[in-house]
Amino acid sequence: MPDPTAGQGEVLVRVTASAVNRADIMQRMGFYPPPEGAPEYPGLEIAGTIIALGPEVTGWNVGDEVCALLGGGGYAEQVAVHHSLLLPVPKGVELRDAAALPEVACTVWSNVFMLAGLKKGERFLVHGGGSGIGTMAVQLAHAHGARVACTVGTEEKAERCRELGADVRINYRTEDFVEFGQFDVILDNMGAKYLDRNVTALTNGGRLVVIGLQGGARAELDLGRLLMKRASVHATSLRARPLQERAAIVASVRENVWPLIESGEVRPIVDRVLPMEKAAEAHQIMENSGHFGKIILENGHHE
Amino acid sequence: MPDPTAGQGEVLVRVTASAVNRADIMQRMGFYPPPEGAPEYPGLEIAGTIIALGPEVTGWNVGDEVCALLGGGGYAEQVAVHHSLLLPVPKGVELRDAAALPEVACTVWSNVFMLAGLKKGERFLVHGGGSGIGTMAVQLAHAHGARVACTVGTEEKAERCRELGADVRINYRTEDFVEFGQFDVILDNMGAKYLDRNVTALTNGGRLVVIGLQGGARAELDLGRLLMKRASVHATSLRARPLQERAAIVASVRENVWPLIESGEVRPIVDRVLPMEKAAEAHQIMENSGHFGKIILENGHHE
Repeated sequence: MPDPTAGQGEVLVRVTASAVNRADIMQRMGFYPPPEGAPEYPGLEIAGTIIALGPEVTGWNVGDEVCALLGGGGYAEQVAVHHSLLLPVPKGVELRDAAALPEVACTVWSNVFMLAGLKKGERFLVHGGGSGIGTMAVQLAHAHGARVACTVGTEEKAERCRELGADVRINYRTEDFVEFGQFDVILDNMGAKYLDRNVTALTNGGRLVVIGLQGGARAELDLGRLLMKRASVHATSLRARPLQERAAIVASVRENVWPLIESGEVRPIVDRVLPMEKAAEAHQIMENSGHFGKIILENGHHE
Repeated sequence: MPDPTAGQGEVLVRVTASAVNRADIMQRMGFYPPPEGAPEYPGLEIAGTIIALGPEVTGWNVGDEVCALLGGGGYAEQVAVHHSLLLPVPKGVELRDAAALPEVACTVWSNVFMLAGLKKGERFLVHGGGSGIGTMAVQLAHAHGARVACTVGTEEKAERCRELGADVRINYRTEDFVEFGQFDVILDNMGAKYLDRNVTALTNGGRLVVIGLQGGARAELDLGRLLMKRASVHATSLRARPLQERAAIVASVRENVWPLIESGEVRPIVDRVLPMEKAAEAHQIMENSGHFGKIILENGHHE
């Protein structure tokens, strides 16, 4: 690939590391084409060092260590990214590990807090507590004083989620989450497969936020039950949003999430670090749900 | 029925008029039992005169002309109602006609504005533009600078909705609303029957609010389409909410809707006035969709 160049409002970043998201796997399989203007190759986030500034960039300098939310193209040695999608590497976090933060911090913050408005004392359920999203969601919800539940596939993941602040761990292989009470906010990655049970598990006034369709897209919705509860079903994705909306989310994450990371209350959960060349192996691990937290892909990494 | 008495925080109102809601019909048919503590007989709103104050009522006096949102029991000569659910009769509105306001004003304001956040310049669709809800929704959305569309069943209703501020009228008997562009907010009373087409008709970031299930409760939802649009499906009802929430809605209606009524920009649309004894006939007219706006039931009315 030719090196990218920094266009208007963009900076050029030398990539230290990227991280794997399930969307990368979907894209590889042909189900999730990159948005217009984004590179063809995967990678929704990176950490690295600014090596050039395009026109009309303010607030950032060559040499700054940053992480960034991308529309794609993070599996690379260099990326061009709009300055409004940059975040500083939080104090106390290694540059490489900062690659594990942008996508999960922006996804969890925008959906659970900005959209669903999770409040202190409310009950929160996240499916897939051991995923990158799950480990961030458990920590952030716990830090905001919510009562946190998560589903997991193994007892080992349950224990690690407990350590991150999950008050209740539900093994989806042996237990049914609808038997664990009702939740004010549910963050779901399963889509169709869980829709009916998610609605059943909402409180009055509850908010279901669907951010993944791993269990299919089409399912019957019982509007009568939703109406009795005055509840809502939201479905969102981060990548397709206009730059302005993504920039607003990044700014809100910097203001609200970064301080929690710098204080150590919330931290990047890194499952393992692989060399960038082993992206295929990293995808395989994620497809088998063999990970806990984020899988990082590092440039110049030798195992 | 024995006369009610004013309990703590309640006033006793001599009822001048009540108005018919589709919920009354559902209740009559046995599908919509009254909430705990509400009378067994129907009537979700009234206008009349305060004839007694219970303990701990402030801000209201015997002799005040009021209208009120009820959990039930409005088809009566007297009602006891919590003072936080009272509204003054707006200046310029006849006492009797004020019975047409509480339910539609509270429903439309709470759903379209408080919940879905309809903004100036956004596109709004309400199904059943000729109903009580529809005539209030068209007027309120128009008054707030939205671009307003509605579905109707006859050309005559289309014309009357145009006069109330509907920029686009769609005859659902001959036209498909999904061919009329996309909408930021849709207020729906059809439930299952329209769910798929409503989601199709949402803009990116659109909000569908379901407040009725006249077309059934269970339907397939395409979460993939919802996710691509970052849209949401809400379903609500007013009657089952805790007193505190209903009181907050009433207060917001008084602050935001009442001035528009007093200025004449929004007005109660009264289809006809029938004597209270003719409630059965009034229900029949509504079941046949033979009305435009609200049907009022008046005490002491002689045809």
